[in-house]
Amino acid sequence: MKGSYEDGRTSLDEERKLASEGDDGVLGSLLITLLSDFGLKDPYIAEVKAVILTICPEARIVDISHSIEKFNIRMGAFVLASAARYFPEGTIHIAVVDPGVGTPRRAVLVETKHAFYVGPDNGLLMLAAHREEIKRVYSITDPRLMLPRVSSTFHGRDVFAPAAAHLANGTPPSCFGSEINDYVMPHFAAPLLKASRIAGEILHIDDFGNIITNIMGAELERAGFRIKELLFIRLRNKSFHLNLCEAYGDVAPKAALALIGSHDFLEISVNQGSAAKMLNVKAGDNVVVSAAKG
Amino acid sequence: MKGSYEDGRTSLDEERKLASEGDDGVLGSLLITLLSDFGLKDPYIAEVKAVILTICPEARIVDISHSIEKFNIRMGAFVLASAARYFPEGTIHIAVVDPGVGTPRRAVLVETKHAFYVGPDNGLLMLAAHREEIKRVYSITDPRLMLPRVSSTFHGRDVFAPAAAHLANGTPPSCFGSEINDYVMPHFAAPLLKASRIAGEILHIDDFGNIITNIMGAELERAGFRIKELLFIRLRNKSFHLNLCEAYGDVAPKAALALIGSHDFLEISVNQGSAAKMLNVKAGDNVVVSAAKG
Amino acid sequence: MKGSYEDGRTSLDEERKLASEGDDGVLGSLLITLLSDFGLKDPYIAEVKAVILTICPEARIVDISHSIEKFNIRMGAFVLASAARYFPEGTIHIAVVDPGVGTPRRAVLVETKHAFYVGPDNGLLMLAAHREEIKRVYSITDPRLMLPRVSSTFHGRDVFAPAAAHLANGTPPSCFGSEINDYVMPHFAAPLLKASRIAGEILHIDDFGNIITNIMGAELERAGFRIKELLFIRLRNKSFHLNLCEAYGDVAPKAALALIGSHDFLEISVNQGSAAKMLNVKAGDNVVVSAAKG
Repeated sequence: MKGSYEDGRTSLDEERKLASEGDDGVLGSLLITLLSDFGLKDPYIAEVKAVILTICPEARIVDISHSIEKFNIRMGAFVLASAARYFPEGTIHIAVVDPGVGTPRRAVLVETKHAFYVGPDNGLLMLAAHREEIKRVYSITDPRLMLPRVSSTFHGRDVFAPAAAHLANGTPPSCFGSEINDYVMPHFAAPLLKASRIAGEILHIDDFGNIITNIMGAELERAGFRIKELLFIRLRNKSFHLNLCEAYGDVAPKAALALIGSHDFLEISVNQGSAAKMLNVKAGDNVVVSAAKG
Repeated sequence: MKGSYEDGRTSLDEERKLASEGDDGVLGSLLITLLSDFGLKDPYIAEVKAVILTICPEARIVDISHSIEKFNIRMGAFVLASAARYFPEGTIHIAVVDPGVGTPRRAVLVETKHAFYVGPDNGLLMLAAHREEIKRVYSITDPRLMLPRVSSTFHGRDVFAPAAAHLANGTPPSCFGSEINDYVMPHFAAPLLKASRIAGEILHIDDFGNIITNIMGAELERAGFRIKELLFIRLRNKSFHLNLCEAYGDVAPKAALALIGSHDFLEISVNQGSAAKMLNVKAGDNVVVSAAKG
Repeated sequence: MKGSYEDGRTSLDEERKLASEGDDGVLGSLLITLLSDFGLKDPYIAEVKAVILTICPEARIVDISHSIEKFNIRMGAFVLASAARYFPEGTIHIAVVDPGVGTPRRAVLVETKHAFYVGPDNGLLMLAAHREEIKRVYSITDPRLMLPRVSSTFHGRDVFAPAAAHLANGTPPSCFGSEINDYVMPHFAAPLLKASRIAGEILHIDDFGNIITNIMGAELERAGFRIKELLFIRLRNKSFHLNLCEAYGDVAPKAALALIGSHDFLEISVNQGSAAKMLNVKAGDNVVVSAAKG
């Protein structure tokens, strides 16, 4: 870190002015979201919020979830991508599921056609960013836009929170560091379609025990499946028939059903019960859907 | 849904003007609360907030609880009614414990003398609304005040959040749909008073393990019970004597006591411990209070 | 309570004017934080927020944690002190871990060089306040600055929330009650340093299972320990060697390490795993660090 925090600020102001003149993108809003695997008992989330509010007192902070399974980047990416699309244009999303904190993994700021993402360069941000079309990705390296002292274990507080707050204050994305192209893209399996048979996997099991697959409603439709049709489903080592319903309440309480959930994915659910408990499955398990044998 | 979302808005503006001219009620404030059984790990709560903030960027959102037992309308109604009375006039409460989502159960907007309630027509809102005196109940049916595409599994995001946000923006309640009178009222048992004996039930067990009954302080007083008096209590198949205390600390740590809790209900508690664990009871269990046999 | 709530307000205004004329301290901001052992399922947290927003509609509320172990003042004090230092000047912190509620234990308002603390006089606030230098401590006794009716079980809602909200509104600290000097200071053990051997204890186990000791980085350095050095650690009845690392990722996944954490305390951790589970320890257990026997 060359120069003091204050000295740095002066020259930074000029850089900001220059950078924003050429800028044509969506402007960062004062709305900042947080997602992490921090859990709820520790001071960590509050420290992130405190840093944001110290740098940008007008910021409005919304929690997405802090109960992501520890170190589960895939689950974090899914939850972030599901929620992000509903936020207003210019929202700044901070996400921290960061097993590589303190190692040379980079910190990144992603600018999409709709929003901004700040977090570790480990794929966590990219499912959401990819859906909105990525415009530019920057490596966050300017120490003047971090806390004066950066710990090796908590970049959520020391790097990502200040970056998001400065962005909300109007600092242009290009001030944070160099543009990069070799950022980490996660590999999320797409389902395999063969005639009237779709092979996918379990993306997420929600708090109700709904089993959310990576098979989209449009894919089911393209493969010829219709609402109210009977589906033949193989899940791990079990197989069974389920009706493709429109609502949980289309079957009796405690009965199983298939339906297109609120994120357009095929879900296997139990009305007023937990499908995940009944079927004893977990994220990543295989699922195959085919037509019921008439 | 007839016409596009944008076309709808134009005519809606005129309807809003007309409706608000005749309006005499409490105005919806920018304060919106949320209660649900969604749990904390999924993107669902954030999606509800994102929809609210997209429609009404100035809204201020306060969570009541998202840890209501899944599908437990009774517990949701109790927690909502307990908290709602402390919020400022005009607060808009969204509550979602909604096993019937996607079935023909209606979405309702309730206007009381103090506040507004938005949620499913299954009784969830009505304990709180009833205490404040219900003025009018509307069925929410106008698709122009919902998200353009309404899923069959997530009306919290697609119907209730937009309704609350439009209400906060000043859309009069009567714009959302027709007034109805046949809304669902929950049946919560009132305690039975006979001379110096009161038979009630367990309303709620809180996170401390305090056993909250439906017997109110005023009812105990009317039945002749006084502070510091010894009560004879039957709870499920156990019976025991407890002093009616004023504070948890009136007895030794880990000792049991009875007291009038912060919501004016008779509570059975253990100082710095869990009465629910000690007595192994659950919401709905019967409780009988009578005078100690001198 | 002498006089009505309204009558009280009139004279209070004059007192406020007088008190603020002589005042030279940090002003209370509109930022109010909350910490408690309330858990998340009940209406209690929302009631506290509702009272704050009724008295001070412009307040901005940030949760620190509501998952402090029930009645664990020590854990509450640690989490509060960790987070508080990152909040802006003038922040008002409400903290409620309050086994003595309803007994004669006092309610206090603490003014430090940086912030304000409102809560029970049981030591909970004082670790944070002490670090910032305590200026004055007041006993909160003026009933005009409480809810009209104060329960004996919920001072978070009835006493602390109104006090914080009135403070945010500009009521000077001296209006709340008399200055006191005999407030409760908690006794937190400082580690014992002898030549190249430090004896301390476990302060906190975080949600990742990181074991946070009360031994500070500066103390390790003073005792001659350097980064990358091998430490000999005794924890409860186990002893083992660990490298003093800079980041979790300096060791293989699931391997143990020692490092200086983000609050400058020595931590014993497992990369992408839980040290607390592996070692089966709890807060309060002893830890001794010495040089590895070469």
